[in-house]
Amino acid sequence: MKKTLAALTLAALFGAAGTTFAAEPVDPIEPVKIENPALVELGKMLYFEPRLSRSGFISCNSCHNLATGGVDNLKTSIGDRWAQGPINSPTVLNSYGQIAQFWDGRAKTLAEQAAGPIANPLEMASTHELAVEVIASIPGYAKHFEAAFGDDKVDIKRITDAIAEFERTLVTPNDRFDQWLKGNKDAITKFELEGYQLFKSSGCTICHNGAQLGGQSFQKMGVVRPYETTNTAEGVKTISGRDQDRMSFKVPVLRNVELTYPYFHDGEAATLEKAVEVMGDIQLGKRYTEEETAKIVAFLKTLTGEQPKIVYPILPPNGPKTPAFNPWAPAEAKK
Amino acid sequence: MKKTLAALTLAALFGAAGTTFAAEPVDPIEPVKIENPALVELGKMLYFEPRLSRSGFISCNSCHNLATGGVDNLKTSIGDRWAQGPINSPTVLNSYGQIAQFWDGRAKTLAEQAAGPIANPLEMASTHELAVEVIASIPGYAKHFEAAFGDDKVDIKRITDAIAEFERTLVTPNDRFDQWLKGNKDAITKFELEGYQLFKSSGCTICHNGAQLGGQSFQKMGVVRPYETTNTAEGVKTISGRDQDRMSFKVPVLRNVELTYPYFHDGEAATLEKAVEVMGDIQLGKRYTEEETAKIVAFLKTLTGEQPKIVYPILPPNGPKTPAFNPWAPAEAKK
Repeated sequence: MKKTLAALTLAALFGAAGTTFAAEPVDPIEPVKIENPALVELGKMLYFEPRLSRSGFISCNSCHNLATGGVDNLKTSIGDRWAQGPINSPTVLNSYGQIAQFWDGRAKTLAEQAAGPIANPLEMASTHELAVEVIASIPGYAKHFEAAFGDDKVDIKRITDAIAEFERTLVTPNDRFDQWLKGNKDAITKFELEGYQLFKSSGCTICHNGAQLGGQSFQKMGVVRPYETTNTAEGVKTISGRDQDRMSFKVPVLRNVELTYPYFHDGEAATLEKAVEVMGDIQLGKRYTEEETAKIVAFLKTLTGEQPKIVYPILPPNGPKTPAFNPWAPAEAKK
Repeated sequence: MKKTLAALTLAALFGAAGTTFAAEPVDPIEPVKIENPALVELGKMLYFEPRLSRSGFISCNSCHNLATGGVDNLKTSIGDRWAQGPINSPTVLNSYGQIAQFWDGRAKTLAEQAAGPIANPLEMASTHELAVEVIASIPGYAKHFEAAFGDDKVDIKRITDAIAEFERTLVTPNDRFDQWLKGNKDAITKFELEGYQLFKSSGCTICHNGAQLGGQSFQKMGVVRPYETTNTAEGVKTISGRDQDRMSFKVPVLRNVELTYPYFHDGEAATLEKAVEVMGDIQLGKRYTEEETAKIVAFLKTLTGEQPKIVYPILPPNGPKTPAFNPWAPAEAKK
């Protein structure tokens, strides 16, 4: 009993001081405290809601599929009318707490991010006005807005705030690396640990650090040698207008990276081996041996955490005023 | 105690004799006994598996969405490359135990049905060979095939058998009408009951009967007056080749009909009111008054049952031999 108390006190002290993992550049992913369950539930419904799209077919989950690591595993995403998206879908898992959202950081928050695809003609291709009209016209949503916000008013801020609040819960704690970080030295193998040590000593953690191993800074893709791609995305330059921001992208998170292939903003690296090799080459000026690459990949695979357990939502049916959906409507007839 | 036993015996007797509801042409939907949970779990994974499609984007759930009554709520479905499907997606809910599958009955079983869309160029646009190659190449599926079938062999029969077994569990018991059928006379209102009585006395139950209120026979669409539509589907004639089968379709199930709009094989009836009006007119030669239609619609809305509670599956990642997915590949490059 005395021993247990002492251990608890020690843990509390270390936890409070935030020093337990001070020696490592990576912090564990922690489960999320849900403050407003009704808001999370509404957000989940809206996350899976195809009627937020012009066609009535595409939802947030179409490209950030929670069955597959919060991505679509395609180079770039399929949008309205089978549009070919310009960039690879980043994972929605552990996306909260990043410096910004989107590869170029053009959204500061998850809510701001969620507003983007709804109105993007290459993605869900609706408008905020239409999305609000649709959701407000569905009688079964009223009680969910009321429970989440106190009244049943529907606006785009509430829609995106709810989606963001759901997304905030999409964390993947307790992967083997976090078990190791927390003191279970048997949670990863010697080979995987060597991979982590190489990952650190090579300099990967300069960018891939923090709880998500990424998402904390923008970095130029191609520090040592230029990155060659046919993809035309220019990264932060598109937002800032500054030439020096060309090819500067938000550092992607590496949690669950085993699941979030293909890699890079252009999705051109099909495998983790390829991604590690290219990163070593163009960012760090290193040519890893096959064994070194294998070690780093083995380490990266310890970052696959417990995937969110989602009870698939049941969405309320259209009301009499819900606009009709016609996926093949001529573009000019678009509302 | 004595009373309870007597009641139980009575219930058992009636249940066994199948006479409890003998006076009604509708039987309650009953929960399903799951015999092989591993097979159901595998089937659920495959039901949500976008890699069964050529693009890696479309799953069974895309058009038979369990969030929305087991349908996509579109007139006809979106397929590979945004193809416009020829016919309205029937609901997957309560689809087991029907006389056949598809509007024209061309599949005898759910497994046979599931094989169709995978290889249909307007739907998932894969091939059975490619689908098997893909699933067999995903290492994480092996243990699920083993648990379901005793070994990890993957073939199209196993894939579709698993999907069918999952689909068999997608029943929606305990709707208000079933509560009424089982003796709770307060479960439906007087107005709804009058709707049911009118539904019976008009002759609707000649076709819409049994536990699903449909799915038990093929009937000509337009018995009394021809049905006018621009949709070119010819129903059973396509299968039988016989002229008299033109416009003969499987009677759709009415369970959860509130959720499965739009109605008819062409999806041309946007509302239940419209569907009831047209059915009365062309099948029964009746022009319902507005109040009569409202009553029947009110009754139909008592058929919305408990929707299946699905824990969203986590799908295993590609293996090194998994073929790449390119949704925009030129058609001739298709595997």
